[in-house]
Amino acid sequence: MPDEFQIIKSLFAPLSKNFKGALELKDDAALIETANKQNLVVSNDGFVEGIHFRYNDDPKSIGEKILRASISDLAAMGAAPKCWFLTAAFGKGWKQKLKPFAKGCLKAQKQFGLHLAGGDSINSTKTPSFFSLTVIGTAKNPIKRSGGKAGDRLYVSGTLGDAALGLLNPNHKFLANRYLYPEPRLALGLLLPKLATAAIDLSDGLLADLNHLCKASNCGAQINVDALPISPAAIDMHKQARKLALNAGDDYELLIAAPPKLEKSLFLAAERAKTPLTHIGMLTRSKKIIAIDDRGKQVKPLREGFNHF
Amino acid sequence: MPDEFQIIKSLFAPLSKNFKGALELKDDAALIETANKQNLVVSNDGFVEGIHFRYNDDPKSIGEKILRASISDLAAMGAAPKCWFLTAAFGKGWKQKLKPFAKGCLKAQKQFGLHLAGGDSINSTKTPSFFSLTVIGTAKNPIKRSGGKAGDRLYVSGTLGDAALGLLNPNHKFLANRYLYPEPRLALGLLLPKLATAAIDLSDGLLADLNHLCKASNCGAQINVDALPISPAAIDMHKQARKLALNAGDDYELLIAAPPKLEKSLFLAAERAKTPLTHIGMLTRSKKIIAIDDRGKQVKPLREGFNHF
Repeated sequence: MPDEFQIIKSLFAPLSKNFKGALELKDDAALIETANKQNLVVSNDGFVEGIHFRYNDDPKSIGEKILRASISDLAAMGAAPKCWFLTAAFGKGWKQKLKPFAKGCLKAQKQFGLHLAGGDSINSTKTPSFFSLTVIGTAKNPIKRSGGKAGDRLYVSGTLGDAALGLLNPNHKFLANRYLYPEPRLALGLLLPKLATAAIDLSDGLLADLNHLCKASNCGAQINVDALPISPAAIDMHKQARKLALNAGDDYELLIAAPPKLEKSLFLAAERAKTPLTHIGMLTRSKKIIAIDDRGKQVKPLREGFNHF
Repeated sequence: MPDEFQIIKSLFAPLSKNFKGALELKDDAALIETANKQNLVVSNDGFVEGIHFRYNDDPKSIGEKILRASISDLAAMGAAPKCWFLTAAFGKGWKQKLKPFAKGCLKAQKQFGLHLAGGDSINSTKTPSFFSLTVIGTAKNPIKRSGGKAGDRLYVSGTLGDAALGLLNPNHKFLANRYLYPEPRLALGLLLPKLATAAIDLSDGLLADLNHLCKASNCGAQINVDALPISPAAIDMHKQARKLALNAGDDYELLIAAPPKLEKSLFLAAERAKTPLTHIGMLTRSKKIIAIDDRGKQVKPLREGFNHF
């Protein structure tokens, strides 16, 4: 099977070519212009049992996670959440899970201020469960992946690699919670439109998502692995936590590009949003993505790809 | 497992209660008001391999069908299609089907004038395929299910029961095509806002969907089974095609309620839209739905429920 990105580029991008707001299917969300120069920002995400969550995960946590992860796309666009739609195919063994699942959805939508507006519910007891979420937000000046310029500095919110380690170590409460309850960085995202040139949320892993941002912005990047924000728990858990963080998925932190002259304002915004922010590198004129350490030595990631089990 | 409607009503409707445009999750689509008194009309539909389409169906026809069926919800709201989003989990055996599937989507979006705007693509080779579509249209005065009044006449477009018979008789070209290529009644739908008090598209079967309309409109209905529009092919294929049509699903024809004084205008609109339209009954003050024949005798449907295989 060709990978997700090949499929989208070769087969589905042609279906979007006459709709500017589709952003060539390259961004976190699509834009629908409305009359008062507001944009509706629309993002879709699918979650398959056995790929994106486990059959034995607490169903309440599944409800919370899928909505939190979806909202993260709105944060990356600098959009305020408005409403969401759920297509749910409830698979084998889900009869008892429906209530706690809905409870988890309710908890997340309350926390992040949006409302369920519609959807489709399917009894699908012969298949694994499948959820597709459409989240809709509003933004006057949405941030795209494509606005980055060589010379912009790169920043990430929070810490990297926790979720992947939480998936591997479900008994470590801090790390497991970072996997189960990703934190959509909405407060920071809403302050970014006047500061950032480009942003993306990290779901596939830092290098993979940085690659998406660089391709869309038509530039390269250099990052310092020793500068990556790693939690003490991750350092305790894994000898090479920094290298792991290059490819670990499911962090849902924001990767942000911004011009150096706005750095001070950006850190003030992060403080206002109570969101840790770390300078990790810069966009470059070359088309390559290079990871180095403090001594300038090139660092290879631990492994390719991202980390769905 | 509780059925789809119980799940939505008991577990998910509470999540929509502070969002008026969700229409209590009772309608074909949700409404998002925008500044110029336009509404965005948003509908979601999920399609699971083995439930809504067959593994061996021509993948091009699957692409066409899922988009056509989804657009039908826009027709029922009197909305003009604008864009759509696709979450696709491509299951086992789909590598060779991707291209024709995308071709089918392209054909349908061209025909009905909308554009792919975003989505999510998942390699899901351990599961059946799953598709979730979000279609978005615009309408100044969307038609809801809830506007029907006792005394309104009931009409349906096209003919009923063909799709169910096509599913059972895949070698009968006319009937099979009615199953594979549902006709969203967009042209008629766009003319309805000034004529119809309520409308719904028939996916679950006439009685089931009439029940949804009646509940939302807080009334009952009486329909004449002998007045139902049945194709000659359906009559040839099944002795009791009229009775079958009461519960046969997947027709995607429109069921419309309109006041008697607008009947002439409604038929003129149907003519303009080149869409057959048939008067089949009326909405009543009672809370019951009654099917009678030409002699006034009550008719029982052939069987309960709708007809996914």
